[in-house]
Amino acid sequence: MMSLRKNAEKSAIVLLSGGLDSMVTAAIAKEQGFAVHAISIDYGQRHRRELEAAELIAEKLDVVSHHKLALDLRSFGGSALTDDIDVPKAGVGDTIPVTYVPARNLVFLALTVAAAEATGANDVFIGVNALDYSGYPDCRPEFIASFAETARLGTKAGVEGHPFEIHTPLQNMTKADIAGECDRLGLDPAWSWSCYDPSDDGRACGLCDSCRLRKKGFAEAGLEDSTLYAA
Amino acid sequence: MMSLRKNAEKSAIVLLSGGLDSMVTAAIAKEQGFAVHAISIDYGQRHRRELEAAELIAEKLDVVSHHKLALDLRSFGGSALTDDIDVPKAGVGDTIPVTYVPARNLVFLALTVAAAEATGANDVFIGVNALDYSGYPDCRPEFIASFAETARLGTKAGVEGHPFEIHTPLQNMTKADIAGECDRLGLDPAWSWSCYDPSDDGRACGLCDSCRLRKKGFAEAGLEDSTLYAA
Repeated sequence: MMSLRKNAEKSAIVLLSGGLDSMVTAAIAKEQGFAVHAISIDYGQRHRRELEAAELIAEKLDVVSHHKLALDLRSFGGSALTDDIDVPKAGVGDTIPVTYVPARNLVFLALTVAAAEATGANDVFIGVNALDYSGYPDCRPEFIASFAETARLGTKAGVEGHPFEIHTPLQNMTKADIAGECDRLGLDPAWSWSCYDPSDDGRACGLCDSCRLRKKGFAEAGLEDSTLYAA
Repeated sequence: MMSLRKNAEKSAIVLLSGGLDSMVTAAIAKEQGFAVHAISIDYGQRHRRELEAAELIAEKLDVVSHHKLALDLRSFGGSALTDDIDVPKAGVGDTIPVTYVPARNLVFLALTVAAAEATGANDVFIGVNALDYSGYPDCRPEFIASFAETARLGTKAGVEGHPFEIHTPLQNMTKADIAGECDRLGLDPAWSWSCYDPSDDGRACGLCDSCRLRKKGFAEAGLEDSTLYAA
């Protein structure tokens, strides 16, 4: 972990979805001494609750700025997270699920780098992890490494010798590790929102991949998650 | 050039800005037998005329669909194309100009690939060229090649063995070559719009990099460009 001193007054852009992973990532960026600028993308996700969580987290972490960007990925279609397609509840499988949003992290990272370049920041944080995850290809380290190289080649900052560093502090953590980090950093898990398919009374479904992975993480870490689950 | 037969009924997503290069690119995609789906991005560019041109071109080329996506890059700042910063008029220089929009083609290609994946298309066309251009890093072939690899690694289609092909038919053309293609394909140059800083009466300024490159192209090709210039 980098020292507070080293990064003092350096700005970082953190992709803050409002989920547990993004909350822990933002807190780690702050702990590392970065001045945190959060960016949340309203891509038409059906679980709007996630965006409210992002707002709450930005406030609780006292970030320098919180940029909310609207981008209507719904109009492209093709995902249970944006379309009227049922969110699967049978458990995490071996294939890429219908909750996959076409090229989402590619788009989100590109936007985050654009925000970083416009801000003059060289550090970007994203809470991807490839251990306890849903099998999305855009969470894998080889994708992140390739993206960093593409961003270096395709930006003014990159060609002028100031490439972006893409920080993925959760990359090799299990969900239990992430729950542990949440606890260590003094974050309230309930500030964040993971469920893809909340019930009408505002509870997490408890059955979608995202709920299952979250519940498993806190249980394995022996920690309490104050989230209210319908199932 | 691929045969009409080979690509018949294959869909391609074409990034249609409304500029000359994108118009010629869309027409080439159509000539190659692709069913052309155009995508135009309203990123808050000050030269709104460009988006009207995109609409006209989509109509003239009779594309299968034309998707207009709003994305407020203005809110990021940092470019003469979106901010209240003067567009330079002194001629094309050796450095990256202030009309550079942070990570624009990275964002646009990511969105185009997202649209392609959602549509089930594997072919993407973008009208970048790195000969007569303004020196933007995101027009260079090494960037495009790296982007294609990143998109392969970060998408369901890519990991399942159907990577996206990023077509850049203008990559090695001069502006004179592009003007020649425009003529060969029976396109009216005036359908397209290049100027970054139109005058109040709707004429192209004639002095910005984009106008200068366009005028030079048609002049060198010995072809007429019906665009009305203020200077």
